Amino acid sequence: MKLVTLDDIAAAAERIDSDIVRTPLLPAGWGDPVRPLWLKPENLQPVGAFKIRGAFNALGRLDPDVRDKGVVAYSSGNHAQAVAYAAAAYGVAAHIVMPEETPAVKVQATRDRGAQVVLCGAGRRESVAAELVERTGGVLVPPFDHPDVIAGQGTIGLEIAQDLPDVASVFVPVSGGGLASGIGTAIRELIPQAKIFGVEPQLAADTAESLVAGHRVDWPVAQRNRTIADGLRSTPSELTFAHLQRVLDGVITVTEDEIRSAVGELALCAHLVAEPSGAVALAGYRKVAQPPGPAVVIVSGGNIEPAMLAAVLTGGQ
Amino acid sequence: MKLVTLDDIAAAAERIDSDIVRTPLLPAGWGDPVRPLWLKPENLQPVGAFKIRGAFNALGRLDPDVRDKGVVAYSSGNHAQAVAYAAAAYGVAAHIVMPEETPAVKVQATRDRGAQVVLCGAGRRESVAAELVERTGGVLVPPFDHPDVIAGQGTIGLEIAQDLPDVASVFVPVSGGGLASGIGTAIRELIPQAKIFGVEPQLAADTAESLVAGHRVDWPVAQRNRTIADGLRSTPSELTFAHLQRVLDGVITVTEDEIRSAVGELALCAHLVAEPSGAVALAGYRKVAQPPGPAVVIVSGGNIEPAMLAAVLTGGQ
Repeated sequence: MKLVTLDDIAAAAERIDSDIVRTPLLPAGWGDPVRPLWLKPENLQPVGAFKIRGAFNALGRLDPDVRDKGVVAYSSGNHAQAVAYAAAAYGVAAHIVMPEETPAVKVQATRDRGAQVVLCGAGRRESVAAELVERTGGVLVPPFDHPDVIAGQGTIGLEIAQDLPDVASVFVPVSGGGLASGIGTAIRELIPQAKIFGVEPQLAADTAESLVAGHRVDWPVAQRNRTIADGLRSTPSELTFAHLQRVLDGVITVTEDEIRSAVGELALCAHLVAEPSGAVALAGYRKVAQPPGPAVVIVSGGNIEPAMLAAVLTGGQ
Repeated sequence: MKLVTLDDIAAAAERIDSDIVRTPLLPAGWGDPVRPLWLKPENLQPVGAFKIRGAFNALGRLDPDVRDKGVVAYSSGNHAQAVAYAAAAYGVAAHIVMPEETPAVKVQATRDRGAQVVLCGAGRRESVAAELVERTGGVLVPPFDHPDVIAGQGTIGLEIAQDLPDVASVFVPVSGGGLASGIGTAIRELIPQAKIFGVEPQLAADTAESLVAGHRVDWPVAQRNRTIADGLRSTPSELTFAHLQRVLDGVITVTEDEIRSAVGELALCAHLVAEPSGAVALAGYRKVAQPPGPAVVIVSGGNIEPAMLAAVLTGGQ
């Protein structure tokens, strides 16, 4: 299987340069001066998530004639917003397949970006997307199972290596694995001695189990769906799993309370609004007794329900 | 009166370069593509506010022999944190004078940064600070009434001019006026055609009134203290007022509800936690019918009470 290379990631960085925010590393020194911690705030990207990087790279890689036929994606989350946003920037049509139970506010947000939303029944999103590809001639942009998407997310690793060449550990959330595959590939190549840790909710720890087993272990979706970290309910593909086996030094799992606590810490200490999926990497860092420093934690997204953030801030659930 | 120059600001930028976060401009395109809006997120600085820039520049400008005797500041807010932080970075003592009624959590936060906190009665902070200067031989770092502090805050304007050379308007909160003086001086010099708007709470609109009158109009502190924007309850000094008269194109005043609404917009759309004082500039932008674009709004600080942020998020007061 051909894996994504550092060259792919460097090319992606050049391609998406003017479309994304070059996020700074933020010092997170509160109470921990000995092991300096830095945050990479990808929640500050347009659409509020790192997904914009992979989406722009995937669209940018398409031949213009092909791209003009439009793009198709299936997602109820940040990938939907990212593909819709990138398609609008390129001036091409986007069809986004979303489950019927997607909250109306997310459907509307996707439509507001100019995308056509196609609602579908449970478990049918991939087949509906395939029909749309057939009908429109558009190109499918998968949420993680594609080299161009992985290379786009990997640009985060490139930026970390540029900004903090002595980074000793990087903490990355893992779900479908595109983000960790990309960042891990860049860091492993540029800073071989740095440790790369994936972080998962205990309630969706299929990758932790899979890496120990040495092969992908299937967790039923109903089980993965228990976590509040709604962006971390996917499972790696063959392609991303092959990357993760190669680049991760380990996977740390965190409880739902630890995730909530990290959301609160990010809001009050770092002044960043993070969604639960965006805060798990900090939760993972906090769980390790002696994380090698300097460490970087990826804050991957910020699209949290206001009521959930309010509850975290006031100590509720 | 000698005003701060662009050269002073450029020198400050070089001096504080390694101590501060080079904040990016964040595109804030939601629903307003025609007049692009950018946010300058100074709430992401260490201590959560732009004040760190002036503090580092003021300390950095001191002769090392003088600086080693320590520094003194009076503030119950972000300036206290900033001076304590900068003093710790320079390894020198800091005495911070705070009113007796300062919330315990803020007193503790200042002590946690290694500063000596000296509590004082109402209206006595300047005299107590003067006594400390006398006793310790330390140097007073005022919150805004000093050219080095103004030049430090002005580095924000320099960064805006570098990152967005066609900026057409800049929205800056005004209280003591150090931030607006510094940013205004840089922008006025580098991008003469750009409009620079101060923004104040209606409940503390002394600068708006003063600029119309052509001289400083005194608003009693009890009156200014009515606004929830607790960082905007100061009033310009002779020095900052002279700058403001020269650089501001106008002052926009906003209601308390408009401030709360901007706090909510920043949290939910920009994923930034802003304190009320940090959100007024966005409120001012939203109030102008035809703000010249591209526009930059300064998000000046993020230290909000968790309960207040939660209330904003859930639609309460």
